Amino acid sequence: MVFTNSQHTVKRFDMEIQQLVNLVLDMGRTVEQQVSRAVAAFRQGDAAVAREVVAGDAAVNRRDIEIDRSCLRLLGRRQPMSTDLRLVMALNKAVNDLERIGDEAKAIAEKTLAIHARGGDSLREGIPLEMGRLATIASRRVQNALDSLARLDVDQAWMLVRTDEAEDVFQDILRALSTYALDGELAVATVIDVALALKALKRVADRAQNLAEYVIYIVEGQDIRHQI
Amino acid sequence: MVFTNSQHTVKRFDMEIQQLVNLVLDMGRTVEQQVSRAVAAFRQGDAAVAREVVAGDAAVNRRDIEIDRSCLRLLGRRQPMSTDLRLVMALNKAVNDLERIGDEAKAIAEKTLAIHARGGDSLREGIPLEMGRLATIASRRVQNALDSLARLDVDQAWMLVRTDEAEDVFQDILRALSTYALDGELAVATVIDVALALKALKRVADRAQNLAEYVIYIVEGQDIRHQI
Repeated sequence: MVFTNSQHTVKRFDMEIQQLVNLVLDMGRTVEQQVSRAVAAFRQGDAAVAREVVAGDAAVNRRDIEIDRSCLRLLGRRQPMSTDLRLVMALNKAVNDLERIGDEAKAIAEKTLAIHARGGDSLREGIPLEMGRLATIASRRVQNALDSLARLDVDQAWMLVRTDEAEDVFQDILRALSTYALDGELAVATVIDVALALKALKRVADRAQNLAEYVIYIVEGQDIRHQI
Repeated sequence: MVFTNSQHTVKRFDMEIQQLVNLVLDMGRTVEQQVSRAVAAFRQGDAAVAREVVAGDAAVNRRDIEIDRSCLRLLGRRQPMSTDLRLVMALNKAVNDLERIGDEAKAIAEKTLAIHARGGDSLREGIPLEMGRLATIASRRVQNALDSLARLDVDQAWMLVRTDEAEDVFQDILRALSTYALDGELAVATVIDVALALKALKRVADRAQNLAEYVIYIVEGQDIRHQI
């Protein structure tokens, strides 16, 4: 089927696009929850919740493949041009980032389990507290990015792209982690696990930036990646 | 312009696809070099080469945006269907993975600089040696993945997907790192930097797996992601 400009086809195309956007937003909310639960489990050393997060990643992956197929079907059947094509391609990329955010949530949960399995090596109060700061930033960024995608709000997307405290906070926490470790209360293996969990959380914040960049690309047709 | 089946248009389309494949393969070789140089710099503590790798990432990023544009142009002008559409979409995803491999090379180089800046905290012989094992695996996987893409060799792609020693070797090295750290010769900050550099290298190996999965997707039409 070739895309034509008849009112009927346009309407159906718009409907299909809106369905696609809804699927992406829904997946976004799911991975955001995965991250929040993974961080909560990590901070509280809760192995049961961590296991649930690990198990929950399969549903995220299924969603990834489903939406990818929808994109391909839409491209093949509707043959969209210019703005519509850009929109579908951007959604296709967004799904990839959301799937990776899901992977990072799983990675944080796995580190929780590794620390737990090592037994009794509970984290000093300071680390969960510091991690909370980074988690708040990462969650807010993902939520804002999804919000800007839902409303195609390019101002909100630009705001997100231009303000990024995640790197500074991440570096602060790594320094704090070194200090705690020097006190000798943490096993080296745990220090490494905590560092990798923090890095995973930092990557969540980075992925939110990608999402915002797609919104700018959809609305303005401008590919600003790698420039900010 | 709508894709038609006339011999002339098909020929031009094939040519454009081949150009796109060549661009992707060329980008693949570039990022593979970036990884090799980053690992060499890390292992030798060579800040000058590390700085070159960091600077070299800009060219990778430009290539990313260029190829993305080529994909969009091809989709918009040629409106490919079925196998051709799948091929273009897979190449579009492959570029994204290659760009991320470039990012990991940069991350490894930045850790080299951070350790260097801390001054005098040169790595014990064991760590560069262990890292070499993981680097060999990661490089071979990227090369094999690119090779399978160049020849659309689905057997090679399946072989790559089915054998992954990277995770085991990565975990081995983290354990070795803990042991070296316990000897007290490494600053905690350096232990963390080494762990993050190793993780970046591990991610390179993971990305090679993605590339192989796209080859299977192109040739067999089967999306095997998340199943292996």
